[in-house]
Amino acid sequence: MEIEIATIGGYEEVGRQMTAVRAGDDVVIFDMGLNLSQVLIHDNVETERMHSLDLIDMGAIPDDRVMSDLEGDVQAIVPTHGHLDHIGAISKLAHRYNAPVVATPFTIELVKQQIEGEQKFGVENDLIKMDPGETMSIGDSGNVDLEFVNVTHSIIDAINPVLHTPEGAVVYGLDKRMDHSPVIGDPIDMERFREIGREGNGVLCYIEDCTNANKKGRTPSESVARSHLKDVLYSMEDYDGGIVATTFSSHIARVTSLVEFAKDIGRQPVLLGRSMEKYSGTAERLDFVDFPGDLGMFGHRKSVDRTFKRIMNEGKENFLPVVTGHQGEPRAMLTRMARGETPYELDGGDKVVFSARVIPEPTNEGQRYQAEKLLGMQGARIYDDIHVSGHMNQEGHYEMLDALQPQHIIPAHQDLKGLSGYVTLCENEGYQMGRDLHVSRNGNLIQIVD
Amino acid sequence: MEIEIATIGGYEEVGRQMTAVRAGDDVVIFDMGLNLSQVLIHDNVETERMHSLDLIDMGAIPDDRVMSDLEGDVQAIVPTHGHLDHIGAISKLAHRYNAPVVATPFTIELVKQQIEGEQKFGVENDLIKMDPGETMSIGDSGNVDLEFVNVTHSIIDAINPVLHTPEGAVVYGLDKRMDHSPVIGDPIDMERFREIGREGNGVLCYIEDCTNANKKGRTPSESVARSHLKDVLYSMEDYDGGIVATTFSSHIARVTSLVEFAKDIGRQPVLLGRSMEKYSGTAERLDFVDFPGDLGMFGHRKSVDRTFKRIMNEGKENFLPVVTGHQGEPRAMLTRMARGETPYELDGGDKVVFSARVIPEPTNEGQRYQAEKLLGMQGARIYDDIHVSGHMNQEGHYEMLDALQPQHIIPAHQDLKGLSGYVTLCENEGYQMGRDLHVSRNGNLIQIVD
Amino acid sequence: MEIEIATIGGYEEVGRQMTAVRAGDDVVIFDMGLNLSQVLIHDNVETERMHSLDLIDMGAIPDDRVMSDLEGDVQAIVPTHGHLDHIGAISKLAHRYNAPVVATPFTIELVKQQIEGEQKFGVENDLIKMDPGETMSIGDSGNVDLEFVNVTHSIIDAINPVLHTPEGAVVYGLDKRMDHSPVIGDPIDMERFREIGREGNGVLCYIEDCTNANKKGRTPSESVARSHLKDVLYSMEDYDGGIVATTFSSHIARVTSLVEFAKDIGRQPVLLGRSMEKYSGTAERLDFVDFPGDLGMFGHRKSVDRTFKRIMNEGKENFLPVVTGHQGEPRAMLTRMARGETPYELDGGDKVVFSARVIPEPTNEGQRYQAEKLLGMQGARIYDDIHVSGHMNQEGHYEMLDALQPQHIIPAHQDLKGLSGYVTLCENEGYQMGRDLHVSRNGNLIQIVD
Amino acid sequence: MEIEIATIGGYEEVGRQMTAVRAGDDVVIFDMGLNLSQVLIHDNVETERMHSLDLIDMGAIPDDRVMSDLEGDVQAIVPTHGHLDHIGAISKLAHRYNAPVVATPFTIELVKQQIEGEQKFGVENDLIKMDPGETMSIGDSGNVDLEFVNVTHSIIDAINPVLHTPEGAVVYGLDKRMDHSPVIGDPIDMERFREIGREGNGVLCYIEDCTNANKKGRTPSESVARSHLKDVLYSMEDYDGGIVATTFSSHIARVTSLVEFAKDIGRQPVLLGRSMEKYSGTAERLDFVDFPGDLGMFGHRKSVDRTFKRIMNEGKENFLPVVTGHQGEPRAMLTRMARGETPYELDGGDKVVFSARVIPEPTNEGQRYQAEKLLGMQGARIYDDIHVSGHMNQEGHYEMLDALQPQHIIPAHQDLKGLSGYVTLCENEGYQMGRDLHVSRNGNLIQIVD
Repeated sequence: MEIEIATIGGYEEVGRQMTAVRAGDDVVIFDMGLNLSQVLIHDNVETERMHSLDLIDMGAIPDDRVMSDLEGDVQAIVPTHGHLDHIGAISKLAHRYNAPVVATPFTIELVKQQIEGEQKFGVENDLIKMDPGETMSIGDSGNVDLEFVNVTHSIIDAINPVLHTPEGAVVYGLDKRMDHSPVIGDPIDMERFREIGREGNGVLCYIEDCTNANKKGRTPSESVARSHLKDVLYSMEDYDGGIVATTFSSHIARVTSLVEFAKDIGRQPVLLGRSMEKYSGTAERLDFVDFPGDLGMFGHRKSVDRTFKRIMNEGKENFLPVVTGHQGEPRAMLTRMARGETPYELDGGDKVVFSARVIPEPTNEGQRYQAEKLLGMQGARIYDDIHVSGHMNQEGHYEMLDALQPQHIIPAHQDLKGLSGYVTLCENEGYQMGRDLHVSRNGNLIQIVD
Repeated sequence: MEIEIATIGGYEEVGRQMTAVRAGDDVVIFDMGLNLSQVLIHDNVETERMHSLDLIDMGAIPDDRVMSDLEGDVQAIVPTHGHLDHIGAISKLAHRYNAPVVATPFTIELVKQQIEGEQKFGVENDLIKMDPGETMSIGDSGNVDLEFVNVTHSIIDAINPVLHTPEGAVVYGLDKRMDHSPVIGDPIDMERFREIGREGNGVLCYIEDCTNANKKGRTPSESVARSHLKDVLYSMEDYDGGIVATTFSSHIARVTSLVEFAKDIGRQPVLLGRSMEKYSGTAERLDFVDFPGDLGMFGHRKSVDRTFKRIMNEGKENFLPVVTGHQGEPRAMLTRMARGETPYELDGGDKVVFSARVIPEPTNEGQRYQAEKLLGMQGARIYDDIHVSGHMNQEGHYEMLDALQPQHIIPAHQDLKGLSGYVTLCENEGYQMGRDLHVSRNGNLIQIVD
Repeated sequence: MEIEIATIGGYEEVGRQMTAVRAGDDVVIFDMGLNLSQVLIHDNVETERMHSLDLIDMGAIPDDRVMSDLEGDVQAIVPTHGHLDHIGAISKLAHRYNAPVVATPFTIELVKQQIEGEQKFGVENDLIKMDPGETMSIGDSGNVDLEFVNVTHSIIDAINPVLHTPEGAVVYGLDKRMDHSPVIGDPIDMERFREIGREGNGVLCYIEDCTNANKKGRTPSESVARSHLKDVLYSMEDYDGGIVATTFSSHIARVTSLVEFAKDIGRQPVLLGRSMEKYSGTAERLDFVDFPGDLGMFGHRKSVDRTFKRIMNEGKENFLPVVTGHQGEPRAMLTRMARGETPYELDGGDKVVFSARVIPEPTNEGQRYQAEKLLGMQGARIYDDIHVSGHMNQEGHYEMLDALQPQHIIPAHQDLKGLSGYVTLCENEGYQMGRDLHVSRNGNLIQIVD
Repeated sequence: MEIEIATIGGYEEVGRQMTAVRAGDDVVIFDMGLNLSQVLIHDNVETERMHSLDLIDMGAIPDDRVMSDLEGDVQAIVPTHGHLDHIGAISKLAHRYNAPVVATPFTIELVKQQIEGEQKFGVENDLIKMDPGETMSIGDSGNVDLEFVNVTHSIIDAINPVLHTPEGAVVYGLDKRMDHSPVIGDPIDMERFREIGREGNGVLCYIEDCTNANKKGRTPSESVARSHLKDVLYSMEDYDGGIVATTFSSHIARVTSLVEFAKDIGRQPVLLGRSMEKYSGTAERLDFVDFPGDLGMFGHRKSVDRTFKRIMNEGKENFLPVVTGHQGEPRAMLTRMARGETPYELDGGDKVVFSARVIPEPTNEGQRYQAEKLLGMQGARIYDDIHVSGHMNQEGHYEMLDALQPQHIIPAHQDLKGLSGYVTLCENEGYQMGRDLHVSRNGNLIQIVD
């Protein structure tokens, strides 16, 4: 059976991920993501109203024109998890393909919300839920299957899809951290990866998340971030003023820890900001978390402001607002608080906890700097970098190669500079660039079996 | 009663700490340290055989000539803990003063070993042990007392000495982290600090450890480093090759965690290198730790080599050597292993865990880089930065000011650039440079009460 | 005669410079500057309409309330040169003092324009022009004189004022580079500084520009930047597309070089942007430069757009627009060009020359990054860092101390971290902090002679 | 005619350059270099006595075993210039090939000295001199020629060899800066490159020096470094103590400028250190420079020490020693001076001019830091970074592509991270990775025409 892989997006950048695998006549698409920074660099762009081609020209969504060179029928569109750089282009591209979106329940829910917000295209692909550990048949050949292997990332319900073919398995490895003690959900299913490496024809091809490929050592478990966060919040137990925290809205494990430690130090947690409400609300509705019954979540400006007023009335010392704005985004909640645009009044000594790392890019760094400066002008004090990455460092990559023993490797989720360390790493394990290690660019086709 | 403070060493650098406080006719000296980097920059220097004046000229030990301007009798020399930059000059300077060295038991033991290694001067000062929480009378006035308040640092048995005078307390705040869950020993005694701030005339003067004064937020607890280290070592449980760890020899809490986690993953820990043996042996002898009965500690070259041979014979997969060399020091054990100068043979895939941070200075960075490169040439893989600082960041400083409410403040343990953040911090709290906030330099006298 | 110095602004930051010197009954104020970054951090602030007290609270202009502690009459307000951080608060503060503004002709012209733009206060102080090398009498005592010594900086007509008193000279050393081959104007008058160091009672006090006090070596001459710029522009001689340059509008020497080299490579230079027109127009009107007769300068939006249209019509290859926007300021000309908001169309291969350095602060770095990214998206290619600083590095400071041999020194124009290197430097020359080396903060009074 | 290219060394690092081009039956080898840092990382290694295979294992010299896969006869070994990373392996590898070394006169002279120092192998290949601009026939086919095109680099007599074949020209582009005003020798011969791009079949393949491929803009001309150096040295004209300068020994243009400016400020220049004597002596002997008749050059320890004694006797203020040690190499002359191991005594205020940049690698940075610290301890003051790179930045690459219009491109002289910017640059110009843009690794064969 011919096996061909199209590296469509995310092979020259982090963002707008998209890869297609053809096994005989059947094609499966993994991820359809959005590169948000290519949108935000422009003023006043509303992606909801924009046409795909304009977004492709902007470098915001994958240029999927190479799909016409791929002979076969798309049978499924499979986002691996709910981050925008993996699902954000579904509303712009999926309607071109006569195929369902297949994903885990939490991811499907986020895809649904994404599609509902779309104003240009009517996206009507079926949305099919499949749990980690499950398998479905692909196409009519009867010998191609799609399996979801549970992995750990900075969002819940993340999986690595595996396409089982007669030639061996194609493992799509985006995005993951190797975490044996995640705070929510099961540990990464390394046992299954090892089995896949040994069974049948083994692993034909492994497409890897190279985000941290130039970083040595091991990405710490979420439990380490939790231990750090606990130390920070417990140290504030005696403080009788305002404490505010911010983190990635989609990072349900982290939000859960914040909620829990807030309670431990005698404060009522409350989640504020549109995306805070969206992700945490969805996670709660789907029973991924069991938040305290009285946990408030507010997204709309009016209800947020009403909550802030209540907090000011009842005493800041009784609350711990968890808000959006960890990157200093100009319109996020924390930045608005810093500018004095909300009813929440910061006082000298108030504490602001950034349970996040600044994404190391000058735009973010500039915005975070401004947000921190404005907070500081009001007397607030900053605790930052209480975080661990969602992506494996080099030692995780070594472990994956050891488990899967793939015949071919395709590095993804980085530009050439960013994945360079992964090439050396693979060479250390006996692979050779141009032979079985395929460094690709957006829009390329790689024939693995012909 | 006249109160005068001589800022003798460590006010223009980190290293060679020394401060003298005169209360009426009685003088107490806090710390007598060595700035090792000023020694190592020269080739072939043996401090054991050197005269004080040469070491002063080199900037290696405090220039204590200002002591002659201080009218009063030295009643005690009080090192706060056992690090070289606090005790390393005792063997060179203490014999000039007719006064005992007063310190906690572990510190006294290290001072004793220091003095025994001295070859130039016969240092015969009495060595007096006093536990944290205890108090002794100073001089004959009857109203000056020395108290030891328990603090947490990257070495055990660290204290902050407090000189109680009729004018108020002088609190000498070097060195500490604000740790409520240290792995060994008691948490920092904030309750006592708060009492001292309120009782009698309160705190007349606070001399502060400004090492991290330009860093925002809170230094994490040792328990966070422990959680990180556990995650790293547990992730290696299935590895059947060599694992080697390195950390600060004097960091007994970290060594204890390494020993414990080694056992957890089925390996026999063994401590190797002269200073590993010295500090851990001393801690065990004084009952600060309860190491497993079969824990080997070896310092002499021959016994180390014999141990390495045994490890190679019995299988590297059964051991976890904890060795010196975390900064890539050219003659330390790990660097010798990297150069293939020991019987321990590194293989591809072996793991080297640096539970330490590179001290950010180009000499160290260059040496660490070389050590890592040599390790890498043998196939070893590096895990680094598994560490937390022993010094408070800005939030700890705010808490200390809140607890002590000192009338005067003297920043120490940094140069002007390094302490600059502390000046701003104190100004935020209402202090004013030149009035009650005294930025000093080596060799100055500050009259607090006249 | 009593000599007292008030360090009012710019002693904890770079920006909002202001210092007052009292000699007996006479007071002279040096500089009244604006810290623009404290304004820009806020949205929608229009300083023209704001009250002084609000601007003081924002940290934007000097807090001159300490002036009431200074017993004497203000006889002159003396800005050293025309940069905003030295003249920008005159329109907000000068009317409180019954004294003329005394400055060099170019500076006076800029002060006049500043005052004309003021909408809140009517500033009616006399404006008196005095050339470098000249001297005027201050007050009625008959023995206090004000002299202007010619210095070199990144703006023309800069001087260091010297207040001659019976106790010795007070030299106000802000801002300068030690340049013996400036492109425009005379070299720094070191001969006169050396004379002042030797004559009469010598130099009583020297207030120094510490902007670059932590940088070793020597700041290169403007002639080095010119040589670099020439190499860059000449290398583009054969390019037949668009070339755009940007630099500091007030940097007349640099603009002159750009104009000259544009001609050399066969292009018509044209200056675009409000502040380009303002500074270059002023310099030309006052005969500081002799621009080609046909050099266009346009500031108003309409005339700029008209010029761009003409350029597009006649061929980009015939022009070299010199525009504002070297820091990526969102509303500057170059950023508007990058966003496609002007009639000038960038094509692939077009060249953009930044004859400026990014001011190393995350806000600027973020904005410059965005501007460069937008330019890059249109195919433009960037040449940057073609620049030299306007401030002396350490070797310049050593030379000034050698020339002046001052009895007292006050470091200025930096925060504590930024001036820390200058303290060490002065100590190397025998000064001592707290004795004759006065590290001050905003709002302090230093009694030099009492 | 078959054209095949073997990328042997320098495709995963900067150092140990080696590339072979086969045109039909004839093979030409370009460069045989040494990666010195792979040697220096080990203690006590003497390359003169080492076998090739050990040096290959160390990663110090190219692994030329791939040459056996290249069917054809080596007709010439062509080093492009005299730097060690281009000629340093000739003494270890050239004897395996029955072919002459062909190079420019200065390079041949350095190769000869290199071979004379070899103690392990008898290297007896013919050494043939060919000037820039000249051409020789290669092999017996009668239609393969080797041409030398003059280029500008940080060493004199550098060329880019061009192999003219019936299929088009193969241009070997290592190492160069695009300099139209070098201080010594002719400008880069862009006219000839443009001709080669247009004549016959044009350029079949271009192998490019990617050292600075991630740096934007244009590398300044040597004339800019000269202008900077002049400003620095002229500023010292009145200093009556010691001035010492250091630079790359092989950088004859820079040494010439130092010699000239020393004279200008009334000092006798003198070149000290083995490699200073070697390179400058060779350049003078071959008439590349016309040093003053009385210029001393001394390499042997005794004559250096004698010179230093003479300088001390006759007065430091009359001399300007130009010495080795710009990277702080532990055994170089300047480091020995810093350690007080030479008769030259440094005093407070003496000036040390580094006309070089620290090679940005932690080992060098550590050593330079130590050298500067030791110099500082003796009172010396540092001027550094008076330098320009010898390699083109991105704009030079664009110009070369524009001139040559090559059909195929092979990036060289960097690792994958280092050359990543060049891939984007080529893609901007229409090339495509895997089609006509060949990113290679050490030991690969690339079939260009088959």
